[in-house]
Amino acid sequence: MRTKRTESFDFSSAIERGELTLLSQIRKRAARVSEQVPLGIGDDCALLRLSAGEDLAVTTDLSIAGRHFQLDWHPPESVGHRALARGLSDLAAMGARPLAAFLSLGLPRGLTAGRGRKSAGSSTWVTRFYDGLLALGDAYKTPLAGGDLAESPVALSDIVLAGAVPWGRALVRSAARVGDAIYVTGTLGGAAAGLDRLRELAEAASAARGQVGRTKGLRVSAEMASQLAAHLYPQPRVEQGLWLRRRGLASAAIDISDGLSTDLAHVCEESGVAAEIDGNLLPVHAGASLAQALHGGEDYELLFTAGAKARVPGEIAGVAITRIGRVVRQRAGRAQITLISGREKAALEAHGWEHFS
Amino acid sequence: MRTKRTESFDFSSAIERGELTLLSQIRKRAARVSEQVPLGIGDDCALLRLSAGEDLAVTTDLSIAGRHFQLDWHPPESVGHRALARGLSDLAAMGARPLAAFLSLGLPRGLTAGRGRKSAGSSTWVTRFYDGLLALGDAYKTPLAGGDLAESPVALSDIVLAGAVPWGRALVRSAARVGDAIYVTGTLGGAAAGLDRLRELAEAASAARGQVGRTKGLRVSAEMASQLAAHLYPQPRVEQGLWLRRRGLASAAIDISDGLSTDLAHVCEESGVAAEIDGNLLPVHAGASLAQALHGGEDYELLFTAGAKARVPGEIAGVAITRIGRVVRQRAGRAQITLISGREKAALEAHGWEHFS
Repeated sequence: MRTKRTESFDFSSAIERGELTLLSQIRKRAARVSEQVPLGIGDDCALLRLSAGEDLAVTTDLSIAGRHFQLDWHPPESVGHRALARGLSDLAAMGARPLAAFLSLGLPRGLTAGRGRKSAGSSTWVTRFYDGLLALGDAYKTPLAGGDLAESPVALSDIVLAGAVPWGRALVRSAARVGDAIYVTGTLGGAAAGLDRLRELAEAASAARGQVGRTKGLRVSAEMASQLAAHLYPQPRVEQGLWLRRRGLASAAIDISDGLSTDLAHVCEESGVAAEIDGNLLPVHAGASLAQALHGGEDYELLFTAGAKARVPGEIAGVAITRIGRVVRQRAGRAQITLISGREKAALEAHGWEHFS
Repeated sequence: MRTKRTESFDFSSAIERGELTLLSQIRKRAARVSEQVPLGIGDDCALLRLSAGEDLAVTTDLSIAGRHFQLDWHPPESVGHRALARGLSDLAAMGARPLAAFLSLGLPRGLTAGRGRKSAGSSTWVTRFYDGLLALGDAYKTPLAGGDLAESPVALSDIVLAGAVPWGRALVRSAARVGDAIYVTGTLGGAAAGLDRLRELAEAASAARGQVGRTKGLRVSAEMASQLAAHLYPQPRVEQGLWLRRRGLASAAIDISDGLSTDLAHVCEESGVAAEIDGNLLPVHAGASLAQALHGGEDYELLFTAGAKARVPGEIAGVAITRIGRVVRQRAGRAQITLISGREKAALEAHGWEHFS
């Protein structure tokens, strides 16, 4: 957060409400000067340092209330976590080592104020947002090195991730070859199923609110909890991306942020190939539907291709790896992606990423 | 623009309205693969390459309709120009060489559609926004290397600038020393005066709209035009920042984005010093008031300090350099910034950056 931009929050009223601590808290909790961040928050720019022979990988991801999250459904910690996870997942897909994050935050005034007197300055929406974001940053050694802050009629964040990758070694979308096998990390569809659970919980909580003393607590089974975790606190596959890049095993890679059908289509387009997916091989998240696994999005797993003879392990850094199909030649009149289910074959259209629209 | 995010625009209706060209246009007009951008738009991350012994400088700037610009006052080309100029100005203040820009854009659907049939796909708000942004990028050799695109209830942009600066040579805010002279580039207050002119013009145009055939054309004098240019199309002082850094002349530097009083206060805070400004020396923009020069903001000139004996030229790369005051010791009970006008001395409070609030 550059000091000067913090003035776009109203300082005098911020002081009255005891929020000024927020800004100094952010600065305190954010990037300390280190080898990879020689200059953090507080000047016109932050400075990052690469090792010799490394390129910088950069990605930006915009999240807007009502479109990427719902203020009345998503806990603020989850909104912060997911914002950073989206960026880290893009680094993972390139096999890049995270260096630092930058956060631009636009917030309605209400989200910077505490609800009660005791909570002022400590448990406001925005401090809880930072709690979620910084906890994930700590887990992946990704300090917050700067950003911007402004009042906005709609809550939004734009996260920028900077990472490092050796020259010419980044995993790209455009290098899948005919005959390669297609793999995914983890399970698919959990985030989409979790979003359904979240919607149901929000509606149940809303209904219970009118009946004080009548609610018996919300029902959350282990399966539901696992789906909610997949949606609210997805784990970017940074370790797995680094492993694949270092071993030189993957030919192409992408992260599954918009849904398998959409993201695999991107690989096909950029590589000039087609793909066949075996529906029976898909690692569907417990309780999720096949449609959610195919189109759901926001799972932030990696999809990668590797030569047919490559020795791809069943697990990388504790996460299961599943072969789900193969890369085939593009042919006129044939679908870009074909879904095989037993003896049936059907064209798989890209249907990812709609959510709240 | 990562391909996958462009799906957050509705593709099917975009195709119907002939807007799909926008996305391919952006990709075509954006960063080509080069030595400093080995991989541009189209993968999970873009890749940037530094020279040996360089740090990466990164800055992000959020611009939100109603706060940083007004859709019914600002031409879209100006909104795009100003978004990029803010970021380039931050690089200039560090003495960094621009490498590439990243743009996250949130837009209401109306701004991606043409108003008439003939204009569809060519002169929509967003294409004019890109015209302004990319023209400035061309002028400062700053390609657009990536970003994000989403539908948003409010128009907003977040610009990320990446630049390069030799290790340990960046101009920082924190290195002003007691006895240094204080300088600014160009003139001050022009952008604030230009904003007043813009408001007047918008009101006059609005009034004329009700009286078809009665308007005699808007009155725009040369002075007004110069003020409007300062506000709508500010020139970031990239060349001047690079010159100062290469010559090792400046002790500290900052860009004047929030107003002289606010930005000089940042230098004083970060350097642990105080400052005296001579009101008679200020290079006030033609037709601007002293208050606008002191507090107006958005001039995007550089403020820098240099040793009292440093030979600072009267002009750098075609832009005037003016000594406006000096760095003095902090003393209890003395103002951080003192404004001297003839024999009078007064404390100068930081009053920058309010604009539309």
